[in-house]
Amino acid sequence: MNNKAVVLISGGLDSATALAIANQQGFECYGLSFDYGQRHACELASARNVAMHAGVTEHKIIHLDLTQIGGSALTDKSIAVPDKPSDGIPVTYVPARNTIFLSIALGWAEVLSAQDLFIGVNAVDYSGYPDCRPEFIQAFEKLANLATKKGVQGERFTVHTPLIQLSKADIIKKGSDLGVDYALTVSCYDPDEKGHACGRCDSCRIRAQGFKEAGIADPTKYQ
Amino acid sequence: MNNKAVVLISGGLDSATALAIANQQGFECYGLSFDYGQRHACELASARNVAMHAGVTEHKIIHLDLTQIGGSALTDKSIAVPDKPSDGIPVTYVPARNTIFLSIALGWAEVLSAQDLFIGVNAVDYSGYPDCRPEFIQAFEKLANLATKKGVQGERFTVHTPLIQLSKADIIKKGSDLGVDYALTVSCYDPDEKGHACGRCDSCRIRAQGFKEAGIADPTKYQ
Repeated sequence: MNNKAVVLISGGLDSATALAIANQQGFECYGLSFDYGQRHACELASARNVAMHAGVTEHKIIHLDLTQIGGSALTDKSIAVPDKPSDGIPVTYVPARNTIFLSIALGWAEVLSAQDLFIGVNAVDYSGYPDCRPEFIQAFEKLANLATKKGVQGERFTVHTPLIQLSKADIIKKGSDLGVDYALTVSCYDPDEKGHACGRCDSCRIRAQGFKEAGIADPTKYQ
Repeated sequence: MNNKAVVLISGGLDSATALAIANQQGFECYGLSFDYGQRHACELASARNVAMHAGVTEHKIIHLDLTQIGGSALTDKSIAVPDKPSDGIPVTYVPARNTIFLSIALGWAEVLSAQDLFIGVNAVDYSGYPDCRPEFIQAFEKLANLATKKGVQGERFTVHTPLIQLSKADIIKKGSDLGVDYALTVSCYDPDEKGHACGRCDSCRIRAQGFKEAGIADPTKYQ
């Protein structure tokens, strides 16, 4: 037993907040990010800054080229990022992304002898992605305990989702209380080369609305 | 609905057999292999040959450097491959490997509109890896249907494990009947630079014993 946790860090607002919460709860944090060919690759620079600002023990960036698979506006440049809300699950959904990311986090956790994973998924102010829902997280936890040597030996992995039932405004308030510098984060799916946000995509809209409802100044730089 | 299947191909004996079975069952096969920093990287050449011999529609090799995580004799060169059987789960276990590989296979399947995955896991003549057991596969299937857009829309993913309850000898007999050329496959965890097998590791021992029990000539090239 130890207090190590692997925390998924995308460079966005939610994962920065989840990381701050893991820190507050006394976990020794190991940050994990993915260079997966995302359209918004500037989020990796944000992930590095967020990880450094939070003082993680280690920050690992894994290269996994999901453009080889495609199937999403984020991993296939021929699919445009929508500039208005869509019905149902939008084309920014990346097939199996959280399953893939959590699986690799699980592998690293096992090597570190960590039993705790943190992911900043949210099922309230979100885009409707299936792999952000509580039932997905519960199924992954069950899988993790069957999939691993540590699980077979009786250790139990926990996937912490401290934001899953919070509104975006409440996430921002919580993070602000914990000293998260949201100016370091980027949420936009389609930023320009300077990392400035488009202000039109789902992610931009949900973020801007969150700052407004929280009554906190929005530090986002727009194009 | 279609008859596409994503088949994990390692370059070893089991996955070559699973691929032949998928073909026999009428699936249009898409082969998926991983260049994950494995000690026995010559298995990728085998995977290519096996995929070509079976006539897959497409064969994708995904680069994912699991040496960044380590924790296994297969992904950390400072950990030796054991030359005799060990108690419990051996150090050749790669943390969360099948979870990671199936997750990426799931993502590709979703993009292809395939609902079927094939993996050549075996829980009889095997090394005791937790992610080769039926309970792991069932948990992954459940996860797959919660994790994905297609799952939410009511499609059902199936993870086929046609070898899971077969002995190694029965796998070899089955594959031989289906025309698998086992000379193309490599099972050894620690082959030399020519791809010749060590004859001592767990995987070599189980393979050699399988050919012997099947009464089929073993085409393996040893060092």
